[in-house]
Amino acid sequence: MGNDPGAAGSAGVDFVVEAGVLVPGAGSPPMTAAGVAVAGGRLVGVGPIGELRRTHPHVPVHGGPEFLLSPGAVNTHTHLGLVWARGLAHDDRHPVYELFWPVEGNLTPELVGALARVAVAESLLSGVTTIADHYFFADATASACRELGARGALGQTVMTEYGPWASPTAVSDSLDFVRRHLEDDTIHPVVAPHAPDTVGEEALVELFGAARQLGVPVHLHLAQSQREIDTMADRCGKGPVRYLDDLGLLDQKVVAAHCMFATAPEFDIIAERSGVSPVYCPTVHALLSPVLPAAELRGRGINVALGSDATPNDRYDVWTEARTAVTNQAVLTGDPGALPPLEALAMATTGGATALGLDSEIGRLAPGMRADLVLWRTDTARMSPLGDPEALLVTAAGAREVHSVWVEGRRVVGDGVLLGAEEAEVAASGRAAVAELLSGLG
Amino acid sequence: MGNDPGAAGSAGVDFVVEAGVLVPGAGSPPMTAAGVAVAGGRLVGVGPIGELRRTHPHVPVHGGPEFLLSPGAVNTHTHLGLVWARGLAHDDRHPVYELFWPVEGNLTPELVGALARVAVAESLLSGVTTIADHYFFADATASACRELGARGALGQTVMTEYGPWASPTAVSDSLDFVRRHLEDDTIHPVVAPHAPDTVGEEALVELFGAARQLGVPVHLHLAQSQREIDTMADRCGKGPVRYLDDLGLLDQKVVAAHCMFATAPEFDIIAERSGVSPVYCPTVHALLSPVLPAAELRGRGINVALGSDATPNDRYDVWTEARTAVTNQAVLTGDPGALPPLEALAMATTGGATALGLDSEIGRLAPGMRADLVLWRTDTARMSPLGDPEALLVTAAGAREVHSVWVEGRRVVGDGVLLGAEEAEVAASGRAAVAELLSGLG
Repeated sequence: MGNDPGAAGSAGVDFVVEAGVLVPGAGSPPMTAAGVAVAGGRLVGVGPIGELRRTHPHVPVHGGPEFLLSPGAVNTHTHLGLVWARGLAHDDRHPVYELFWPVEGNLTPELVGALARVAVAESLLSGVTTIADHYFFADATASACRELGARGALGQTVMTEYGPWASPTAVSDSLDFVRRHLEDDTIHPVVAPHAPDTVGEEALVELFGAARQLGVPVHLHLAQSQREIDTMADRCGKGPVRYLDDLGLLDQKVVAAHCMFATAPEFDIIAERSGVSPVYCPTVHALLSPVLPAAELRGRGINVALGSDATPNDRYDVWTEARTAVTNQAVLTGDPGALPPLEALAMATTGGATALGLDSEIGRLAPGMRADLVLWRTDTARMSPLGDPEALLVTAAGAREVHSVWVEGRRVVGDGVLLGAEEAEVAASGRAAVAELLSGLG
Repeated sequence: MGNDPGAAGSAGVDFVVEAGVLVPGAGSPPMTAAGVAVAGGRLVGVGPIGELRRTHPHVPVHGGPEFLLSPGAVNTHTHLGLVWARGLAHDDRHPVYELFWPVEGNLTPELVGALARVAVAESLLSGVTTIADHYFFADATASACRELGARGALGQTVMTEYGPWASPTAVSDSLDFVRRHLEDDTIHPVVAPHAPDTVGEEALVELFGAARQLGVPVHLHLAQSQREIDTMADRCGKGPVRYLDDLGLLDQKVVAAHCMFATAPEFDIIAERSGVSPVYCPTVHALLSPVLPAAELRGRGINVALGSDATPNDRYDVWTEARTAVTNQAVLTGDPGALPPLEALAMATTGGATALGLDSEIGRLAPGMRADLVLWRTDTARMSPLGDPEALLVTAAGAREVHSVWVEGRRVVGDGVLLGAEEAEVAASGRAAVAELLSGLG
């Protein structure tokens, strides 16, 4: 990287982004006075500013010495449409868990679209460029991602045993969504069974088989609740990880949200199945308990990704989760260095990319990668002095530092402003959708 | 509150701030479509917008329905000048703890002033209005607070046994700073012995006595490190809390940073001494270990305040600490509801005000209180929907939501921009000071 930043010459180069510090990610050291050249949505050059300018003298230039350039973060588990519950989970004044399924039964594609736009806007404005979503009406979520410019790893949730949208066509609807998006540049479809306890065995086997055949990941909740553990014990006398493994379903790419109820032997299974990535959601694990031993699992070589999840977390910001991961794993283990900021940075970028099978596409800045970029202000008080740029991305920087964001080479945030739509309109439409949804309870 | 918002009439009223939601704090429920009237740096009216407009028809109006108005937060323990170490504490690439005292030995008033400006700017831009600082060259820190408009509860650190600035005049210098600021409106002086192990007994007794006589708090580190515990055991066979109590020094206002090494009997002492407030610094406790059982202490009726402290924390933002407190106390106790967001909000506002003896001045919005206000944008994606405004101040809002800040009625942040100086200049001056400070090592 950086040896031949001008390989593509100026031909076809759309623009250059320059920065005082470039954090390539994936263990490559930060570069000073460096930048990237972008052509057709991909990086064609990564290197010193001087070389980029010589090789691409006549293209638009963004950024400058007062910025830090990094890969966008990957939110590897969330439910964008669940933003309706923001703020309602913290005490019994707002019994969100009693409302859950009654409210979700009132969802429509239009409401999910309006809600997803809010959470997509927040994600982009926070420096999150890829969002792995798991919810109902995935087409509406895909539209929100397209309009505002986020990369979506999207799945249409399948429940066959419980829930507001359990239906005989849930499996075929979900696979239909996948097939319609297989060739998409920014919508990466995934197969999305809800969880082992809420999807029947026949459907699970069909869904995992289809994912293998179509070459896409499975994204599901796994070992996420005591109810799931109890249900599986009743049903088959096994834990959910063991159950899936005995069915032969873990020899493929699996994004496994939570896993905090997995047993030690089940973590051994996960360690042996290299395609399985547990997703650690620090805020939600703290607020629902127990907490995934994420640092320990990373130490065993397991790829652990980071997710915001949704309620009781009130933010859709994986950078916040990275910071929370550092302190929460320190408290969990009693070891202040259990999860250093650089390890959290890796989880938030390459960890998510690997989990989703997109590690040759996103998560780091190198020639050939998709142009998913975040340009951070470093001339703010909070980023001064810039003692350790990589650590400060996790421990100091926040949404106020996000100046510009590109996804697939499209600029989606500029000067801290959402570009795909007016943020205030997105927010107002989302609030109206929430009002309609909750009023529908009667 | 709110029954007679126009008590003062328009006479002398400087301006009104209106909001869609007003969070008074201190357990008072949020008010919709409400605001405050400010005269001479104090709140003279708190109530519905309609009444405020009728009573004060000809004064400037700030805010509007798209905003949330809250008290500013209180950072009850920090070292602003230590911002030079930002980002350097996370691994052995940056051996900050070996540098500590050698670097601090090179400090000058000019350098401390330039450094403090950075951390004060960050604080204000984060919605923190009062800062309890404990460092060398307190006059330089006071100047930074005055210039940028923060309220400072400031003390000149006294060390007599160790450290770069141990000196025979440390006690008299520190008390001189206090005496010169006793009548100040925005600089509230405190007596600031460093810690029981770094200050000799004679000096401790003199300092605590002077604080009692002058009617100001003592702010010190207490039970903060194993070294302190070991030193006190060698010196007197007691823990540091017991030691101070046996000297009769805890029957007054004491801001006690950290306390995480206190024993159970020592926490009993703290519970009996109502003027003593432990300061919980969530990020630093996680990264240095152990963690103060803050939720348990609050449950016992002890007033626990919140502080950012400084390195290894890379932010000077007590709102971030409030969010971190919620998840870290949940992980520490295994109880997701150990410290609900509203309790963290109380710690970040009234908790700090009470610790500093300023509870009739700051920390909540009521007639007669100082006009220390934060106006938050709620038309952002992150604040939509506004399900629980009080909780979302802790769990969702960030520096990007901070629109305007007033301290003592002076507007110090407007439209997210620092008003007392150019933020970029403050940042650049701070970086230059760090470069000079670290170069002085060679």
